Amino acid sequence: MAAPTPNNPQPAPAGKSSPRYELLTLGDELLLGITPNAHLTWIGGQLSRRGVRLDRNVTITDEADAIARQFPESWARADVILTSGGLGPTCDDRTREVIAEALGLPLVFDEGIMGEIEARFARLNRPCTPNNRKQAFKFARGEVLPNPHGTAPGLWLEHEGKVLIMLPGPPNELQPMFLEHVLPRLARLGLLSDSETFVQLRTAGVGESMLETRFQPIFDRHPGLGIAFCAHQWQVDCRINSPDGRYPRQALQQIAEECATLLGDDFVGFGHDSLPKVTGDLLRTQGRTLAVAEACTGGLLAHSFTDLCGASKFFMGGIVSYSNDSKMLLLDCPECLLSQHGAVSAECAVAMATGVAERLSADYGLAITGYMGPTSQGDSGSGTLFVGLHSPLGDWSKKLSYPGPGQTVKQRAVTAAIDWLRREAVRETRRATSPLAN
Amino acid sequence: MAAPTPNNPQPAPAGKSSPRYELLTLGDELLLGITPNAHLTWIGGQLSRRGVRLDRNVTITDEADAIARQFPESWARADVILTSGGLGPTCDDRTREVIAEALGLPLVFDEGIMGEIEARFARLNRPCTPNNRKQAFKFARGEVLPNPHGTAPGLWLEHEGKVLIMLPGPPNELQPMFLEHVLPRLARLGLLSDSETFVQLRTAGVGESMLETRFQPIFDRHPGLGIAFCAHQWQVDCRINSPDGRYPRQALQQIAEECATLLGDDFVGFGHDSLPKVTGDLLRTQGRTLAVAEACTGGLLAHSFTDLCGASKFFMGGIVSYSNDSKMLLLDCPECLLSQHGAVSAECAVAMATGVAERLSADYGLAITGYMGPTSQGDSGSGTLFVGLHSPLGDWSKKLSYPGPGQTVKQRAVTAAIDWLRREAVRETRRATSPLAN
Repeated sequence: MAAPTPNNPQPAPAGKSSPRYELLTLGDELLLGITPNAHLTWIGGQLSRRGVRLDRNVTITDEADAIARQFPESWARADVILTSGGLGPTCDDRTREVIAEALGLPLVFDEGIMGEIEARFARLNRPCTPNNRKQAFKFARGEVLPNPHGTAPGLWLEHEGKVLIMLPGPPNELQPMFLEHVLPRLARLGLLSDSETFVQLRTAGVGESMLETRFQPIFDRHPGLGIAFCAHQWQVDCRINSPDGRYPRQALQQIAEECATLLGDDFVGFGHDSLPKVTGDLLRTQGRTLAVAEACTGGLLAHSFTDLCGASKFFMGGIVSYSNDSKMLLLDCPECLLSQHGAVSAECAVAMATGVAERLSADYGLAITGYMGPTSQGDSGSGTLFVGLHSPLGDWSKKLSYPGPGQTVKQRAVTAAIDWLRREAVRETRRATSPLAN
Repeated sequence: MAAPTPNNPQPAPAGKSSPRYELLTLGDELLLGITPNAHLTWIGGQLSRRGVRLDRNVTITDEADAIARQFPESWARADVILTSGGLGPTCDDRTREVIAEALGLPLVFDEGIMGEIEARFARLNRPCTPNNRKQAFKFARGEVLPNPHGTAPGLWLEHEGKVLIMLPGPPNELQPMFLEHVLPRLARLGLLSDSETFVQLRTAGVGESMLETRFQPIFDRHPGLGIAFCAHQWQVDCRINSPDGRYPRQALQQIAEECATLLGDDFVGFGHDSLPKVTGDLLRTQGRTLAVAEACTGGLLAHSFTDLCGASKFFMGGIVSYSNDSKMLLLDCPECLLSQHGAVSAECAVAMATGVAERLSADYGLAITGYMGPTSQGDSGSGTLFVGLHSPLGDWSKKLSYPGPGQTVKQRAVTAAIDWLRREAVRETRRATSPLAN
């Protein structure tokens, strides 16, 4: 029922029966609604790239008796259990001890870990208090996963034909540890693929079922392919893999390229780059620059680009103009245009786009102006917006009408605007390489 | 170990033994990392306001056999089970049927629900396909929770001394249903409090332990209070309640006001209003206006304000200036200032703040310029930033040095900048009401 669902899950690596993965996320802050459960989203995404679907995620408090109640059930169910949180130095960080007791396995003090922790404190010029000692315990027959970004190392244990992986809570410690130490170990054990199991095509502007219909003739010529569609943020990804291993990666890539060619400008890119990233990279390659002007999206459009690494190479700046006055003052929108057509109009969108491009000497100007839908959660309503685009090939505007609450409409308008810019940049590239096209 | 953890959970309503709440979130998109588990965060937050802590959240796929495996275990453990998702019309929406089978309870077709669904389709001028019929089934002895924002109604069942609540997946359907129909029913059954159980003070600029130290003398004079501190986004909330009911709400409010007075300008507000909201409301009350200029935060500062309902009443606009050129062109930063002090300097921050306020005729100008920490997840590094503030009382700048990855540094700088503006607005209010103060 929720909008973005994949058609079917990615199958496990060829020739293996699918191992059951479970993630145990610990922390009151998750259950009290203070912190989103970002580890689920991140770890789930990483595993799915390697051909594994997380079987279950259980979130409980990090209190000792809650862990003691939950862990045995999880251990009985799963082949691989990942835990996050509760490895720190304070007395309420009891995960390590409670799980060791549940497994009936002793923890042993490890001089090597203690040395690392002391060295870290010395580097930071801070005293190492005695409670840090507990972070130097590991399973007697287990391994230690180094943590260059914090004191608590991760723990790895193979026991009873299962794998237990205990990770620290902070994302900037958990994520590099998972990529550098957990994924390679799991791949060596054959519990997930040692590289991405699929080739991913990102598309924009085509719905899931239309995409399937367009690709079907290609898939029909290659029996036995695994296909999954996944819609998110009004884009659809298509993942192509080979469940029984009959297509090597190179063949999958070739099929994906056939699909991309068929799609034309609806094809965004291979892999995991976001729409703003792909668009920004296109502009950088062309040596083109961009400036943006926005009303109702209030900074979201600018932030989509400034959030990219190296944005200053193509992004000249942005203007959030909330009033007619600021549209005149900062964007040179003529007063008569605003009074004749209003601020939510095709004319105003174009004037904003050309105005900001001129002010900031940018090649492209992208603008959004509009009415949002209602902002409260319950109301459905709809938003009416205009996108303006100034490009080396001309100036255009486009009307958008989206249903849904304000937050949704905003994000959707930003996606649509950026996709339009991308298409224009693609068209310009094509024109540069083949003067007769378009 | 993760930074924001409350000191202790909020106790249950006085005189009741704590009912165990479990949330069962269904959907491949959650496990594959496509969609964040926002229902956990939202429902967990709502329950905690009513004195209840979610005991456990389990996320599984919405496939029938996964639900059939999980549900009996959850039902055995919990007193109140909430499910989200899988109530829709398509053949893979099997939650209703699978759970009915697990409980051994029949579902019955309800003419009333069907009428609502048909009326909705008629209103939207769309045909009602036969598969929508399955959404009109409910438990024979259960109730229906109306869904004005979608087709699938929620279901309510009291059985074996427990409560089962089945909610639709889309947030804009789930949230109003939960507030309007679920919370009041649970309160009537005494399973949670019928209003907020605590008085919440929001603070800024004081750490958790310092806050506790400052409040302790007040708490010592009122034995038996329940106190919870909760840090999030570099702010700390303090929740004060009365676990044994000896303090009525009015007394709690009085104690909280004592705490607020003691805190002075570190007190942000009572309740749940965000820092930008409190700050915006202050400006609106004063009839003052705001404009912002930002470099490295790239639109995030503007968006913190434009995201508020009614922002156009005080927010004049924002400028995202990424280059020296744009700082000169749009913000009138003098070239000599930029070449002498650089774009990341106290001088530039002040010039940006005064420049944007002047350009947009705003009373307050708020600016951020700086170097971010590294953007990749693993690197720790640190960011150096300057905040500039132009106000009716004068112009100032402030240097910030924050550790952590770029994303974290950005959000923290935005919070610090807005908090500074809030303090300045408070100071101006005080000055207006008592000309001798400050």
